Amino acid sequence: MAPSDNPLLDDRTVTFLLDEVLDLRAHLSAIPYFEGHDREGVEVLLAMVRKLARRVLYPTYKAQDEQPPVFRDGRVHLHPSFHAAWPALVETGLLSATRPVEHGDQQLPFVVHAVAAAYLGAANLNLVGLAMLTSGAAHLVEAFGDDALRAAWMAPLYAGTWTGTMALTEPQAGSSLADVETTARRADDGSYRVRGSKIFISGGDHDLGGNVVNLALARIVDPDGHAIPGTRGLSLFVVPRLRLDGGELVDNDAVTTQVIHKIGWRGLPSIALSFGDRDDCHGYLVGPPGRGMPQMFQMMNEARVGVGVAATATASAAYHESLAYAFARPQGRDPRHRDGGPQVPIVAHADVRRMLLRQKAIVEGSLALSLTAARLVDVAAHHPDDATRKTSQRLFDLLTPIVKSFPAERGFESVALALQIHGGYGYSSEYPVEAWLRDQKLNSIHEGTTGIQGLDLLGRKVVAGGGEALSLLLAELATTAGRAEAAGVDPAWGAALREAGDRLAATTMALGQRGLGGDVEGMLLHSHDFLELASVVVIMWQHLGLATAAQAGLARGGPQTPAFYDGKLRAAQYWVTHELPRVDHLADLCVRAEGSYAAVADGSW
Amino acid sequence: MAPSDNPLLDDRTVTFLLDEVLDLRAHLSAIPYFEGHDREGVEVLLAMVRKLARRVLYPTYKAQDEQPPVFRDGRVHLHPSFHAAWPALVETGLLSATRPVEHGDQQLPFVVHAVAAAYLGAANLNLVGLAMLTSGAAHLVEAFGDDALRAAWMAPLYAGTWTGTMALTEPQAGSSLADVETTARRADDGSYRVRGSKIFISGGDHDLGGNVVNLALARIVDPDGHAIPGTRGLSLFVVPRLRLDGGELVDNDAVTTQVIHKIGWRGLPSIALSFGDRDDCHGYLVGPPGRGMPQMFQMMNEARVGVGVAATATASAAYHESLAYAFARPQGRDPRHRDGGPQVPIVAHADVRRMLLRQKAIVEGSLALSLTAARLVDVAAHHPDDATRKTSQRLFDLLTPIVKSFPAERGFESVALALQIHGGYGYSSEYPVEAWLRDQKLNSIHEGTTGIQGLDLLGRKVVAGGGEALSLLLAELATTAGRAEAAGVDPAWGAALREAGDRLAATTMALGQRGLGGDVEGMLLHSHDFLELASVVVIMWQHLGLATAAQAGLARGGPQTPAFYDGKLRAAQYWVTHELPRVDHLADLCVRAEGSYAAVADGSW
Repeated sequence: MAPSDNPLLDDRTVTFLLDEVLDLRAHLSAIPYFEGHDREGVEVLLAMVRKLARRVLYPTYKAQDEQPPVFRDGRVHLHPSFHAAWPALVETGLLSATRPVEHGDQQLPFVVHAVAAAYLGAANLNLVGLAMLTSGAAHLVEAFGDDALRAAWMAPLYAGTWTGTMALTEPQAGSSLADVETTARRADDGSYRVRGSKIFISGGDHDLGGNVVNLALARIVDPDGHAIPGTRGLSLFVVPRLRLDGGELVDNDAVTTQVIHKIGWRGLPSIALSFGDRDDCHGYLVGPPGRGMPQMFQMMNEARVGVGVAATATASAAYHESLAYAFARPQGRDPRHRDGGPQVPIVAHADVRRMLLRQKAIVEGSLALSLTAARLVDVAAHHPDDATRKTSQRLFDLLTPIVKSFPAERGFESVALALQIHGGYGYSSEYPVEAWLRDQKLNSIHEGTTGIQGLDLLGRKVVAGGGEALSLLLAELATTAGRAEAAGVDPAWGAALREAGDRLAATTMALGQRGLGGDVEGMLLHSHDFLELASVVVIMWQHLGLATAAQAGLARGGPQTPAFYDGKLRAAQYWVTHELPRVDHLADLCVRAEGSYAAVADGSW
Repeated sequence: MAPSDNPLLDDRTVTFLLDEVLDLRAHLSAIPYFEGHDREGVEVLLAMVRKLARRVLYPTYKAQDEQPPVFRDGRVHLHPSFHAAWPALVETGLLSATRPVEHGDQQLPFVVHAVAAAYLGAANLNLVGLAMLTSGAAHLVEAFGDDALRAAWMAPLYAGTWTGTMALTEPQAGSSLADVETTARRADDGSYRVRGSKIFISGGDHDLGGNVVNLALARIVDPDGHAIPGTRGLSLFVVPRLRLDGGELVDNDAVTTQVIHKIGWRGLPSIALSFGDRDDCHGYLVGPPGRGMPQMFQMMNEARVGVGVAATATASAAYHESLAYAFARPQGRDPRHRDGGPQVPIVAHADVRRMLLRQKAIVEGSLALSLTAARLVDVAAHHPDDATRKTSQRLFDLLTPIVKSFPAERGFESVALALQIHGGYGYSSEYPVEAWLRDQKLNSIHEGTTGIQGLDLLGRKVVAGGGEALSLLLAELATTAGRAEAAGVDPAWGAALREAGDRLAATTMALGQRGLGGDVEGMLLHSHDFLELASVVVIMWQHLGLATAAQAGLARGGPQTPAFYDGKLRAAQYWVTHELPRVDHLADLCVRAEGSYAAVADGSW
């Protein structure tokens, strides 16, 4: 199969989601901020995006994976294909498309942007990763910088002439940002002198020309070298590779010390940076001192949706690759007449069908959830009604750790199934699936590991506001279950979702009480199982929404084929029968604070 | 951590398994065939093996992974480190150590051999893979060849001066050996002229000197070109790269056409072979015509234990790597005082402990099962009592698909957890875990995919002999549960195992009846879930055995530390609480023949 034959995402499913599930038309008309957009315009945009993804970005992916960036003479050189593909991606305007008209941009709904990112990410995460980082850095400056900072740094980032990074992690701190040691000392000119080491900085160096603008966390020190410890001492800085000095770009003493040999996203360099070896690294404070963490985290939530979209995209590409392979590859026979008859395509074998439907359920559940979250971002930011904005933000906050982790974790399993369907061929780098397996593993690590998502969900999100966000979710589950039943979907499915939601609520209550009683360790002991439990329920909610729209489409003769709609019902059935029954067991582990791993002594491993 | 610091396997656990769980002394004394061996001699052997694994084989692994074989001038060139490491491995005598004294060998118990293979495989699967293939090929000639064939081919293989392969797969057939098209035409000299293409032939070409002896399946054709179709038409042949012609080794028209770019086991070449392009490829029939499949499958069962051992070994190496990392890496704080106090090693975090204990439970359950299976091979082959031999063979046959698939599938998950514990560093090729992740994926594919193991277990093994093998397993479960209770292990664990065994039996009965009723498709629809169900139960049986020995060791003050014994109890507890509760759900899917993936129409994907 030629690379371009892989659709990356299923266009029919995207159309179905936008029109029959998420009701994009209603979304656009409910929010005046989006008045410059209509459904037809979105379709024109998606047509352009599909073409770019399939004809420009995907054809460069394999070569970028096979020939990662080279570290030569102190600088990083990308695969040559970046030099044509990056401008093509920038030209779409997607780096800044969601930004306001007042900045010369399009006010594109984030949900549409997420669809575009999914197509492009499925085609080539190296390029899309660089774009996301650049947008994210620009957005930080937009949100928290003053006019001077915006003029200097935001504009060229959104224009894609420069690129951006998020420079948080340090070798000794890892996920524990409270231990960031990079310092910033105020200079006479009002800027800061930055010193420290950062690691795992994606896109931190390249040869695309222009500049690299690092958005870095650092600790302001007074002249005596004192600093506020912990996360409260962290501030956000622009620390560019080249700084502006009298209108000239000059070297800013930010040096690439290492290129990390990543196992995936191999086209996009991840580097170690050293700031201020010559004490000449200028940093520009973004927003007030000591606000680095909350500022970073405001952006982090959107970055986490970005990870969910990327993980979904990778799983989708692998699903479609294995689906095409399963239809094309003859092997074995119908089990009813083993030695006779012609070979059948492997899609005829029950276990291959199992591996395909599991992938489909993971991919489509992840896509629906990611787009649901993206739509909430739109509503939370731009809906005219105050209360609607607030509740959407709360629900979005709750869903974020699930959007970040479910597509990553189950998406890794999903790509492994795609590889398995290819048999021995899948184990060869001549087929693309193994590269997606490597790519996918990053998504459970960057932007907060899965373990951190579990702590975030249980330790913060579900207990925030006295459990208000969880109540909102439960109300959504009930609404979806009611609609499903009304549409003629098997009423047992909605009942099962309601029951699972109740179990989630009871589990949360029990754990919350444990925490309030002072046993924080016991409360958080099974945060992973709690995340898993919540994810299974939330994905069921999504599948039931898809099933409802499919059943309605079948009943009224909707725009898709009956077979298409039936496929959505089968994926929902799979989730009801295979995943939802896990809820009780997961809840039980949480509530009992099952103690096996807590009890292992140091000498017992 | 320096590579040599990884113990690969835990010596204490191996000793505990041999002495306190499997009772190697009793095994040796019950079987006169092993009279040349005693426990002390085994320890001497293991000391030598550990040294070889840690000091010779493991230090060559990374370089072999990074610099895979090169295909140059029509031949394959291995990484140079093979040239010293292969003779060192051969010198141990392990290639033939289990073979009879009458062939000049040691009659080493297979269970001891399996322990040795686990150490060596954890160190370097490239070398051990080549050794296993060589032994396997020699064993086929030993078992089915006449004296002339043995003299010509077996001896140099067991001596490691030549190497062997299993040449089964063909591009158009894959797992479906009934579609093998390679032909063999009888020549006047009594040998055959072989023509055809084989693919994924591990070790099929190299520059170690000597010869490559392929054990190939081919279809005998009569002078008119007719052949018996299907598996009944397959015969087994020695098809060497160099044939003996008047005492000289001459080219045998077996040509390497391609080197496959595997993603793991990268030091060991996997090639495509073309036989007989010049119609001068001589093959030598092994055993009677038309017996190729049953002969191959007699060896396949031991090869499948080999896969289980290899998968266990890889998961073990990754577990120990992540364990050491978790103790060495400071990050974050005790959740009870977040911003204060010193950083803690990440082993203090609950979710890291979860990932470690899950790995430990998978690794130690897999190791115990693999060694239990290997001990059954010894008993089935050499026990003086007829009935004991037969029942051991039956039980071994039943366990084989689980031994093949559980360490491979859960071991893949296990290595992914080891990578996750390393965070961003795990995603870099500077740390060894990602290489083990790639290595591990092969184990669910080669020597029969996991899908095929499921069909083998449900379609053949559990129904064979009117369910006799399953009855034997149930009796073993009951015995183990009884012993556990007597030793003072929590009686709920044994009761849970008994109940799970009953559920397995009832599920098997229900599916068998469905099959007898003519619904073979419905019977086999959930063969994967059935395999999973049986695996969860069988691993619980193993963990309960370990827990029993540990409890006894605690009570009497056994040779290991109390902390060590307690670790075994915690792993068993983990399996009881986290995995065993899945049994009901899996059984339910099987019995109901849940129909989601069966029902997906071609246009519904």
